[in-house]
Amino acid sequence: MPLSSFSAFEPALAYAASSTEQTMDRLLPRRYPEGGDAGEARVFDAMRYSSLGGGKRLRAFFVLASATLFKVGATPALRTASAIEFLHAYSLIHDDLPAMDDDDLRRGKPTCHKQFDEATAILAGDALQALAFEVLAHEGTHGDPAVRTALVSELAKAAGAQGMVGGQMLDLMAETQAQTSIGAITRLQRLKTGALISFSCMAGAILGKAAEPLRVALAAYAHDLGLAFQIVDDLLDVEGDAATLGKATNKDAAAGKATFVSILGLERARSQAALLAQQAADHLEPFGPKAELLKQAAKFVVTRRA
Amino acid sequence: MPLSSFSAFEPALAYAASSTEQTMDRLLPRRYPEGGDAGEARVFDAMRYSSLGGGKRLRAFFVLASATLFKVGATPALRTASAIEFLHAYSLIHDDLPAMDDDDLRRGKPTCHKQFDEATAILAGDALQALAFEVLAHEGTHGDPAVRTALVSELAKAAGAQGMVGGQMLDLMAETQAQTSIGAITRLQRLKTGALISFSCMAGAILGKAAEPLRVALAAYAHDLGLAFQIVDDLLDVEGDAATLGKATNKDAAAGKATFVSILGLERARSQAALLAQQAADHLEPFGPKAELLKQAAKFVVTRRA
Repeated sequence: MPLSSFSAFEPALAYAASSTEQTMDRLLPRRYPEGGDAGEARVFDAMRYSSLGGGKRLRAFFVLASATLFKVGATPALRTASAIEFLHAYSLIHDDLPAMDDDDLRRGKPTCHKQFDEATAILAGDALQALAFEVLAHEGTHGDPAVRTALVSELAKAAGAQGMVGGQMLDLMAETQAQTSIGAITRLQRLKTGALISFSCMAGAILGKAAEPLRVALAAYAHDLGLAFQIVDDLLDVEGDAATLGKATNKDAAAGKATFVSILGLERARSQAALLAQQAADHLEPFGPKAELLKQAAKFVVTRRA
Repeated sequence: MPLSSFSAFEPALAYAASSTEQTMDRLLPRRYPEGGDAGEARVFDAMRYSSLGGGKRLRAFFVLASATLFKVGATPALRTASAIEFLHAYSLIHDDLPAMDDDDLRRGKPTCHKQFDEATAILAGDALQALAFEVLAHEGTHGDPAVRTALVSELAKAAGAQGMVGGQMLDLMAETQAQTSIGAITRLQRLKTGALISFSCMAGAILGKAAEPLRVALAAYAHDLGLAFQIVDDLLDVEGDAATLGKATNKDAAAGKATFVSILGLERARSQAALLAQQAADHLEPFGPKAELLKQAAKFVVTRRA
């Protein structure tokens, strides 16, 4: 059942989550059935614990939904979505470490270093990053090696020092700087979460060898949507409820961190997110009705409660 | 000056180290000259601190030397060598963390988390891993995208849960098991250090699209050489001197870890390493005199003092 057969967002998201999760399960290493002396299986367990069974899988949805715009097959889209979810899972494991955000709870479960130990959590994150690239480079992901290297190249940039890792570094430095400009925090979030969300939206265009104007439209959508997503994350940290979110709330204020909410105030943050979501949807005009699911996703991102 | 113009190993190694280091310097992110609000530059600094200015660069040498067997150009070889050194540098940063081996000294300098802090060290390692894949996937590394995906694919396997990370997991678990069989420790080391050394030797064959029988010969060389290298590492941990090594010695015995030396004894470990090095060199027969540097490298690996 292709994602394009869905007309409503929520069932499409649920389908994207479950089909990607099945693919991830097949791609993750597992304990040998015969047992034996596979001591390294502890890291397999930790990788599975932290990457399976949870999360909205919004990034996976963006890959699958953008892939339908260019008639990309299910297998390339699901493998690419899995790779991005592995990368995302690694970043959450490392962000939760005591030396970083020091979180005990993630998606309603103990974080990886709480369930296992710090060393295992560091290694599980490291191995999930390697797995993301291994999956993208594998011929099962696309028949054309030029497409596979493009995926690897773009994911590496989105994940590295000038993308997600750079954003996390900025975020850690920002804990001591409650007075930050809106420009600085926008830049931080564009790196920390925006880069990977953008790559998720662009993945369909890469897999489908999309023409330049369509790539540009999709990139503009991804850019605005990523920012809207982050503003809502900050709103939920203030207004949300820990049980629904599956993680602690009010963490930013407690850490004395500048956020979109601390700078803009609740009301302006809310209207800014709504404006960005509308703007994101407008960028999709060149695709016509085919882009309906992505338009609905923009609405969901700003109305979600978790 | 191509590596093939050297007839003696030590100057060839020095040349490989300095030319790879220059390439790494160009590939690493750096602070913007104008300064500005580039808070993430802290992670750039940590990446440079831990990957430049030190190390034997044996892995880089193996890439360059194997590349000369197949007439691979200097740029592809140097970029591939840099990628592997980035990956190796990341693994050292993470291995040194307090939750892992808890080391204060590396190559005679404070380890990354001592010089910066734990969070920065975790992020610098993460970003160096991403950079390794970014470099391999970039068109500057090889004109043929099929070659680039093969490099990414093989490095990801060598680095991941069923390679280097799996070996490190096994190693951490082994600290509580002083009674380990020679088979188990061989398997551990093949994963922990052997996988990346093997990939370094195979990289030249991938870049040069080598025929199958030559790949097999090189793989056999890499396999035996990797094991010899690790046995000598264990010998140096017992017999070596911290000042020459630039790191603490007798760590394995202190941690109650089984090593080749604790199982075989000094004398048998020494003769086993020599035997493996000879066997490694013998595998290179099909290459004739072209493989002289790699043969000398096998000798160096077992006679080195650091």
